[in-house]
Amino acid sequence: MSRPEKAPPLRRRGEPMRRAVSEVVVRLLTDQGPEAVTMADVAAAAGVHESSLYRQFGTREKMIFEAATRYSDQALPAQPAGDDIADDLRSTMRALIEYLNTPQGAALVRLSAVPVSPEFDQERTAYWHRRLDRSADVVRHGVETGQLKADTDPTLVVDALAGPVLARLALFHEVMAMDDVMRLVDQVLRGITV
Amino acid sequence: MSRPEKAPPLRRRGEPMRRAVSEVVVRLLTDQGPEAVTMADVAAAAGVHESSLYRQFGTREKMIFEAATRYSDQALPAQPAGDDIADDLRSTMRALIEYLNTPQGAALVRLSAVPVSPEFDQERTAYWHRRLDRSADVVRHGVETGQLKADTDPTLVVDALAGPVLARLALFHEVMAMDDVMRLVDQVLRGITV
Repeated sequence: MSRPEKAPPLRRRGEPMRRAVSEVVVRLLTDQGPEAVTMADVAAAAGVHESSLYRQFGTREKMIFEAATRYSDQALPAQPAGDDIADDLRSTMRALIEYLNTPQGAALVRLSAVPVSPEFDQERTAYWHRRLDRSADVVRHGVETGQLKADTDPTLVVDALAGPVLARLALFHEVMAMDDVMRLVDQVLRGITV
Repeated sequence: MSRPEKAPPLRRRGEPMRRAVSEVVVRLLTDQGPEAVTMADVAAAAGVHESSLYRQFGTREKMIFEAATRYSDQALPAQPAGDDIADDLRSTMRALIEYLNTPQGAALVRLSAVPVSPEFDQERTAYWHRRLDRSADVVRHGVETGQLKADTDPTLVVDALAGPVLARLALFHEVMAMDDVMRLVDQVLRGITV
Protein backbone atom coordinates (compact mmCIF):
# COMPACT_ATOMS: atom_id res chain seq x y z
CA MET A 1 0.00 0.00 0.00
CA SER A 2 1.51 3.31 -0.98
CA ARG A 3 1.08 6.17 1.40
CA PRO A 4 0.75 9.61 -0.14
CA GLU A 5 3.48 12.03 0.83
CA LYS A 6 2.24 14.68 3.18
CA ALA A 7 2.39 18.01 1.44
CA PRO A 8 4.80 20.42 3.09
CA PRO A 9 3.02 22.93 5.34
CA LEU A 10 1.89 26.09 3.60
CA ARG A 11 1.93 24.40 0.22
CA ARG A 12 -1.56 22.90 0.53
CA ARG A 13 -4.05 25.17 -1.15
CA GLY A 14 -7.54 25.03 -2.53
CA GLU A 15 -9.34 21.72 -2.44
CA PRO A 16 -6.59 19.63 -0.79
CA MET A 17 -6.24 22.25 1.92
CA ARG A 18 -9.99 22.46 2.50
CA ARG A 19 -10.21 18.70 2.72
CA ALA A 20 -7.33 18.44 5.20
CA VAL A 21 -8.81 21.22 7.34
CA SER A 22 -12.24 19.59 7.29
CA GLU A 23 -10.78 16.33 8.54
CA VAL A 24 -9.06 18.11 11.41
CA VAL A 25 -12.26 19.96 12.30
CA VAL A 26 -14.34 16.78 12.44
CA ARG A 27 -11.70 15.06 14.56
CA LEU A 28 -11.46 17.93 17.05
CA LEU A 29 -15.23 18.26 17.20
CA THR A 30 -15.77 14.61 17.84
CA ASP A 31 -12.93 14.10 20.30
CA GLN A 32 -13.15 17.34 22.25
CA GLY A 33 -16.39 19.13 21.46
CA PRO A 34 -17.20 22.34 19.57
CA GLU A 35 -15.27 24.60 21.97
CA ALA A 36 -12.06 22.83 20.99
CA VAL A 37 -12.44 23.91 17.38
CA THR A 38 -10.50 27.17 17.49
CA MET A 39 -8.91 28.68 14.40
CA ALA A 40 -5.49 28.45 16.09
CA ASP A 41 -5.77 24.76 16.95
CA VAL A 42 -7.20 23.82 13.56
CA ALA A 43 -4.43 25.75 11.79
CA ALA A 44 -1.75 24.05 13.88
CA ALA A 45 -3.18 20.55 13.42
CA ALA A 46 -3.69 21.01 9.68
CA GLY A 47 -0.29 22.61 9.12
CA VAL A 48 -1.61 25.84 7.64
CA HIS A 49 -1.53 29.48 8.63
CA GLU A 50 -4.47 30.78 10.62
CA SER A 51 -4.80 33.60 8.10
CA SER A 52 -5.27 31.00 5.36
CA LEU A 53 -8.22 29.58 7.26
CA TYR A 54 -9.87 32.97 7.37
CA ARG A 55 -9.10 33.53 3.68
CA GLN A 56 -10.46 30.13 2.66
CA PHE A 57 -13.51 29.83 4.91
CA GLY A 58 -14.37 33.34 6.03
CA THR A 59 -15.42 32.48 9.58
CA ARG A 60 -14.94 29.70 12.10
CA GLU A 61 -18.62 28.77 11.75
CA LYS A 62 -18.41 28.49 7.98
CA MET A 63 -15.32 26.32 8.31
CA ILE A 64 -17.14 24.00 10.72
CA PHE A 65 -20.19 23.94 8.47
CA GLU A 66 -18.14 22.93 5.44
CA ALA A 67 -16.42 20.20 7.45
CA ALA A 68 -19.76 18.90 8.72
CA THR A 69 -21.47 18.81 5.33
CA ARG A 70 -18.43 17.23 3.62
CA TYR A 71 -18.32 14.53 6.23
CA SER A 72 -22.03 13.79 6.35
CA ASP A 73 -22.50 13.85 2.57
CA GLN A 74 -19.82 11.19 2.34
CA ALA A 75 -20.76 9.13 5.41
CA LEU A 76 -24.47 9.21 4.68
CA PRO A 77 -24.90 9.27 0.90
CA ALA A 78 -28.33 9.27 -0.73
CA GLN A 79 -29.75 5.74 -0.83
CA PRO A 80 -30.52 4.39 -4.29
CA ALA A 81 -34.19 3.58 -4.89
CA GLY A 82 -34.92 -0.06 -5.64
CA ASP A 83 -37.97 -2.19 -6.38
CA ASP A 84 -39.38 -2.32 -2.89
CA ILE A 85 -40.25 0.95 -1.17
CA ALA A 86 -40.40 -0.75 2.23
CA ASP A 87 -36.85 -2.02 1.81
CA ASP A 88 -35.72 1.38 0.55
CA LEU A 89 -37.15 3.26 3.54
CA ARG A 90 -35.86 0.68 5.99
CA SER A 91 -32.34 0.87 4.62
CA THR A 92 -32.44 4.67 4.52
CA MET A 93 -33.46 4.78 8.16
CA ARG A 94 -31.00 2.05 9.13
CA ALA A 95 -28.19 4.10 7.61
CA LEU A 96 -29.31 7.19 9.51
CA ILE A 97 -29.38 5.35 12.83
CA GLU A 98 -25.96 3.80 12.19
CA TYR A 99 -24.62 7.26 11.35
CA LEU A 100 -26.05 8.77 14.53
CA ASN A 101 -24.51 5.94 16.52
CA THR A 102 -21.05 7.08 15.44
CA PRO A 103 -19.41 9.85 17.51
CA GLN A 104 -19.01 11.91 14.32
CA GLY A 105 -22.63 11.59 13.22
CA ALA A 106 -24.11 12.51 16.57
CA ALA A 107 -21.70 15.42 17.08
CA LEU A 108 -22.24 16.86 13.61
CA VAL A 109 -26.03 16.70 13.67
CA ARG A 110 -26.13 18.25 17.12
CA LEU A 111 -24.09 21.23 15.92
CA SER A 112 -27.24 22.48 14.21
CA ALA A 113 -28.95 22.88 17.58
CA VAL A 114 -26.65 25.81 18.34
CA PRO A 115 -27.86 29.04 16.75
CA VAL A 116 -25.05 31.09 15.21
CA SER A 117 -26.59 34.05 13.40
CA PRO A 118 -29.82 34.47 11.45
CA GLU A 119 -27.97 34.42 8.08
CA PHE A 120 -25.84 31.44 8.99
CA ASP A 121 -28.74 29.48 10.49
CA GLN A 122 -30.74 30.10 7.33
CA GLU A 123 -27.97 28.67 5.16
CA ARG A 124 -27.61 25.66 7.45
CA THR A 125 -31.36 25.04 7.42
CA ALA A 126 -31.33 25.27 3.61
CA TYR A 127 -28.72 22.50 3.62
CA TRP A 128 -30.94 20.36 5.86
CA HIS A 129 -33.90 20.91 3.55
CA ARG A 130 -31.80 19.86 0.55
CA ARG A 131 -30.75 16.70 2.37
CA LEU A 132 -34.29 15.82 3.40
CA ASP A 133 -35.46 16.54 -0.13
CA ARG A 134 -32.81 14.14 -1.45
CA SER A 135 -34.17 11.48 0.90
CA ALA A 136 -37.65 12.22 -0.39
CA ASP A 137 -36.49 10.98 -3.82
CA VAL A 138 -36.90 7.42 -2.55
CA VAL A 139 -40.52 8.20 -1.70
CA ARG A 140 -41.07 9.93 -5.06
CA HIS A 141 -39.78 6.81 -6.78
CA GLY A 142 -42.26 4.76 -4.72
CA VAL A 143 -45.09 6.98 -5.96
CA GLU A 144 -43.90 6.91 -9.58
CA THR A 145 -43.69 3.13 -9.60
CA GLY A 146 -47.21 2.85 -8.21
CA GLN A 147 -46.18 1.39 -4.87
CA LEU A 148 -47.37 4.41 -2.91
CA LYS A 149 -50.62 6.34 -3.16
CA ALA A 150 -50.54 9.05 -5.79
CA ASP A 151 -51.34 11.81 -3.30
CA THR A 152 -48.46 10.89 -0.98
CA ASP A 153 -46.46 13.95 0.10
CA PRO A 154 -42.81 12.81 -0.11
CA THR A 155 -41.44 15.55 2.14
CA LEU A 156 -44.02 14.83 4.81
CA VAL A 157 -43.12 11.13 4.74
CA VAL A 158 -39.45 11.97 5.29
CA ASP A 159 -40.50 14.34 8.08
CA ALA A 160 -42.51 11.63 9.81
CA LEU A 161 -39.58 9.20 9.60
CA ALA A 162 -36.54 11.36 10.24
CA GLY A 163 -38.23 13.90 12.54
CA PRO A 164 -38.67 11.63 15.56
CA VAL A 165 -35.11 10.33 15.23
CA LEU A 166 -33.62 13.82 14.96
CA ALA A 167 -35.79 15.22 17.76
CA ARG A 168 -34.68 12.44 20.10
CA LEU A 169 -31.07 13.08 19.28
CA ALA A 170 -31.28 16.86 19.59
CA LEU A 171 -33.52 17.16 22.64
CA PHE A 172 -33.33 13.82 24.45
CA HIS A 173 -29.66 13.12 23.69
CA GLU A 174 -30.44 9.57 22.68
CA VAL A 175 -30.46 7.59 19.46
CA MET A 176 -33.77 5.89 18.76
CA ALA A 177 -33.60 2.10 19.01
CA MET A 178 -33.45 0.38 15.63
CA ASP A 179 -36.53 -1.72 16.51
CA ASP A 180 -38.58 1.40 17.20
CA VAL A 181 -37.41 2.96 13.95
CA MET A 182 -38.44 -0.10 11.96
CA ARG A 183 -41.87 -0.02 13.63
CA LEU A 184 -42.08 3.67 12.76
CA VAL A 185 -41.38 2.85 9.12
CA ASP A 186 -44.13 0.24 9.17
CA GLN A 187 -46.58 2.69 10.74
CA VAL A 188 -45.89 5.37 8.16
CA LEU A 189 -46.02 2.88 5.29
CA ARG A 190 -49.44 1.66 6.35
CA GLY A 191 -50.89 5.08 5.63
CA ILE A 192 -49.34 5.55 2.20
CA THR A 193 -49.00 2.10 0.63
CA VAL A 194 -51.38 1.35 -2.23
CA MET B 1 -58.96 44.80 40.64
CA SER B 2 -57.03 44.05 43.78
CA ARG B 3 -53.32 43.66 43.44
CA PRO B 4 -51.64 41.25 45.82
CA GLU B 5 -49.10 42.82 48.13
CA LYS B 6 -45.60 41.87 47.21
CA ALA B 7 -44.15 39.80 50.04
CA PRO B 8 -41.20 41.51 51.70
CA PRO B 9 -37.87 40.18 50.43
CA LEU B 10 -36.48 37.24 52.36
CA ARG B 11 -39.90 36.30 53.70
CA ARG B 12 -40.92 34.31 50.64
CA ARG B 13 -40.15 30.67 51.26
CA GLY B 14 -41.12 27.29 49.92
CA GLU B 15 -43.71 27.20 47.17
CA PRO B 16 -44.33 30.96 46.80
CA MET B 17 -40.59 31.54 46.59
CA ARG B 18 -40.09 28.76 44.03
CA ARG B 19 -42.94 30.12 41.95
CA ALA B 20 -41.60 33.67 42.04
CA VAL B 21 -38.13 32.49 41.12
CA SER B 22 -39.46 30.36 38.26
CA GLU B 23 -41.27 33.35 36.80
CA VAL B 24 -38.08 35.41 36.91
CA VAL B 25 -36.10 32.61 35.27
CA VAL B 26 -38.55 32.24 32.39
CA ARG B 27 -38.59 35.99 31.86
CA LEU B 28 -34.80 36.31 31.81
CA LEU B 29 -34.47 33.26 29.57
CA THR B 30 -36.99 34.53 27.08
CA ASP B 31 -35.85 38.14 27.02
CA GLN B 32 -32.10 37.69 27.22
CA GLY B 33 -31.20 34.06 26.59
CA PRO B 34 -29.81 31.30 28.82
CA GLU B 35 -26.53 33.10 29.57
CA ALA B 36 -28.51 35.86 31.31
CA VAL B 37 -29.89 33.42 33.87
CA THR B 38 -27.22 33.77 36.54
CA MET B 39 -27.88 32.96 40.19
CA ALA B 40 -27.01 36.56 41.11
CA ASP B 41 -29.40 38.15 38.63
CA VAL B 42 -32.23 35.77 39.44
CA ALA B 43 -31.78 36.37 43.16
CA ALA B 44 -31.82 40.13 42.68
CA ALA B 45 -34.88 40.10 40.41
CA ALA B 46 -36.81 37.72 42.67
CA GLY B 47 -35.86 39.53 45.86
CA VAL B 48 -34.20 36.58 47.55
CA HIS B 49 -30.72 35.75 48.71
CA GLU B 50 -28.49 33.87 46.28
CA SER B 51 -27.80 31.34 49.05
CA SER B 52 -31.55 30.63 49.23
CA LEU B 53 -31.54 29.74 45.54
CA TYR B 54 -28.80 27.20 46.08
CA ARG B 55 -30.60 25.84 49.16
CA GLN B 56 -33.93 25.56 47.33
CA PHE B 57 -32.81 24.36 43.90
CA GLY B 58 -29.35 22.89 44.36
CA THR B 59 -27.87 24.08 41.07
CA ARG B 60 -28.54 26.72 38.43
CA GLU B 61 -29.50 23.98 35.96
CA LYS B 62 -32.05 22.44 38.32
CA MET B 63 -33.53 25.87 38.97
CA ILE B 64 -33.91 26.47 35.24
CA PHE B 65 -35.35 22.99 34.74
CA GLU B 66 -38.00 23.55 37.41
CA ALA B 67 -38.90 26.90 35.90
CA ALA B 68 -39.19 25.36 32.44
CA THR B 69 -41.35 22.42 33.49
CA ARG B 70 -43.61 24.59 35.66
CA TYR B 71 -44.17 26.96 32.79
CA SER B 72 -44.70 24.36 30.10
CA ASP B 73 -46.98 22.15 32.22
CA GLN B 74 -49.19 25.18 32.72
CA ALA B 75 -48.96 26.69 29.24
CA LEU B 76 -49.38 23.37 27.45
CA PRO B 77 -51.64 21.19 29.60
CA ALA B 78 -52.68 17.69 28.55
CA GLN B 79 -55.54 17.86 26.04
CA PRO B 80 -58.72 16.10 27.12
CA ALA B 81 -59.76 13.21 24.86
CA GLY B 82 -63.11 13.66 23.14
CA ASP B 83 -65.28 11.70 20.71
CA ASP B 84 -63.25 12.30 17.59
CA ILE B 85 -59.63 11.21 17.54
CA ALA B 86 -58.89 13.36 14.48
CA ASP B 87 -60.13 16.44 16.33
CA ASP B 88 -58.18 15.45 19.43
CA LEU B 89 -54.91 15.04 17.56
CA ARG B 90 -55.44 18.20 15.57
CA SER B 91 -56.09 20.27 18.68
CA THR B 92 -53.13 18.70 20.51
CA MET B 93 -50.82 19.60 17.65
CA ARG B 94 -52.38 23.03 17.23
CA ALA B 95 -51.67 23.76 20.89
CA LEU B 96 -48.06 22.61 20.48
CA ILE B 97 -47.50 24.87 17.46
CA GLU B 98 -49.08 27.83 19.22
CA TYR B 99 -46.85 27.19 22.21
CA LEU B 100 -43.72 27.03 20.07
CA ASN B 101 -44.73 30.26 18.40
CA THR B 102 -44.45 32.05 21.74
CA PRO B 103 -40.99 33.29 22.77
CA GLN B 104 -41.30 31.30 26.00
CA GLY B 105 -42.26 28.03 24.36
CA ALA B 106 -39.49 28.11 21.77
CA ALA B 107 -36.86 29.16 24.31
CA LEU B 108 -37.84 26.53 26.87
CA VAL B 109 -37.96 23.61 24.44
CA ARG B 110 -34.62 24.60 22.94
CA LEU B 111 -32.99 24.52 26.36
CA SER B 112 -33.08 20.73 26.11
CA ALA B 113 -30.73 20.84 23.15
CA VAL B 114 -27.90 21.91 25.47
CA PRO B 115 -26.33 18.98 27.28
CA VAL B 116 -25.62 19.69 30.95
CA SER B 117 -24.38 16.49 32.56
CA PRO B 118 -25.28 12.82 32.02
CA GLU B 119 -27.34 12.69 35.25
CA PHE B 120 -29.13 15.94 34.55
CA ASP B 121 -29.78 15.10 30.90
CA GLN B 122 -31.25 11.77 31.97
CA GLU B 123 -33.68 13.47 34.34
CA ARG B 124 -34.67 15.97 31.69
CA THR B 125 -35.21 13.24 29.11
CA ALA B 126 -37.36 11.34 31.64
CA TYR B 127 -39.54 14.45 31.90
CA TRP B 128 -39.87 14.58 28.11
CA HIS B 129 -40.88 10.93 28.01
CA ARG B 130 -43.52 11.54 30.68
CA ARG B 131 -44.90 14.45 28.67
CA LEU B 132 -45.01 12.47 25.42
CA ASP B 133 -46.60 9.59 27.28
CA ARG B 134 -49.27 11.94 28.60
CA SER B 135 -49.97 13.03 25.00
CA ALA B 136 -50.22 9.37 24.04
CA ASP B 137 -53.28 9.11 26.32
CA VAL B 138 -55.32 10.73 23.57
CA VAL B 139 -54.21 7.98 21.19
CA ARG B 140 -54.90 5.27 23.79
CA HIS B 141 -58.40 6.66 24.18
CA GLY B 142 -58.81 6.45 20.40
CA VAL B 143 -57.83 2.78 20.50
CA GLU B 144 -60.07 2.01 23.48
CA THR B 145 -63.07 3.61 21.80
CA GLY B 146 -62.49 1.59 18.64
CA GLN B 147 -61.59 4.57 16.46
CA LEU B 148 -58.01 3.42 15.95
CA LYS B 149 -56.66 0.01 15.05
CA ALA B 150 -56.12 -2.23 18.06
CA ASP B 151 -52.43 -2.72 17.32
CA THR B 152 -51.71 1.03 17.18
CA ASP B 153 -48.60 1.97 19.17
CA PRO B 154 -49.61 5.18 20.99
CA THR B 155 -46.06 6.32 21.72
CA LEU B 156 -45.02 5.83 18.11
CA VAL B 157 -47.97 7.91 16.94
CA VAL B 158 -46.95 10.76 19.23
CA ASP B 159 -43.38 10.38 17.97
CA ALA B 160 -44.48 10.64 14.36
CA LEU B 161 -46.51 13.77 15.11
CA ALA B 162 -44.38 15.67 17.61
CA GLY B 163 -40.98 14.47 16.34
CA PRO B 164 -40.93 16.43 13.07
CA VAL B 165 -42.13 19.58 14.83
CA LEU B 166 -39.53 19.33 17.58
CA ALA B 167 -36.73 18.41 15.17
CA ARG B 168 -37.49 21.45 13.04
CA LEU B 169 -37.45 23.69 16.07
CA ALA B 170 -34.27 22.24 17.56
CA LEU B 171 -32.19 21.82 14.40
CA PHE B 172 -33.73 24.11 11.79
CA HIS B 173 -34.72 26.90 14.16
CA GLU B 174 -38.15 27.15 12.61
CA VAL B 175 -41.69 26.35 13.69
CA MET B 176 -43.49 24.02 11.29
CA ALA B 177 -46.33 25.72 9.44
CA MET B 178 -49.77 24.86 10.83
CA ASP B 179 -50.92 23.63 7.39
CA ASP B 180 -48.04 21.16 7.20
CA VAL B 181 -48.77 19.95 10.71
CA MET B 182 -52.42 19.33 9.87
CA ARG B 183 -51.38 17.38 6.76
CA LEU B 184 -48.98 15.40 8.94
CA VAL B 185 -51.85 14.52 11.28
CA ASP B 186 -53.91 13.35 8.31
CA GLN B 187 -51.04 11.23 6.98
CA VAL B 188 -50.47 9.54 10.34
CA LEU B 189 -54.20 9.00 10.87
CA ARG B 190 -54.55 7.27 7.51
CA GLY B 191 -52.32 4.46 8.73
CA ILE B 192 -54.01 3.89 12.07
CA THR B 193 -57.69 4.70 11.61
CA VAL B 194 -60.09 1.73 11.61
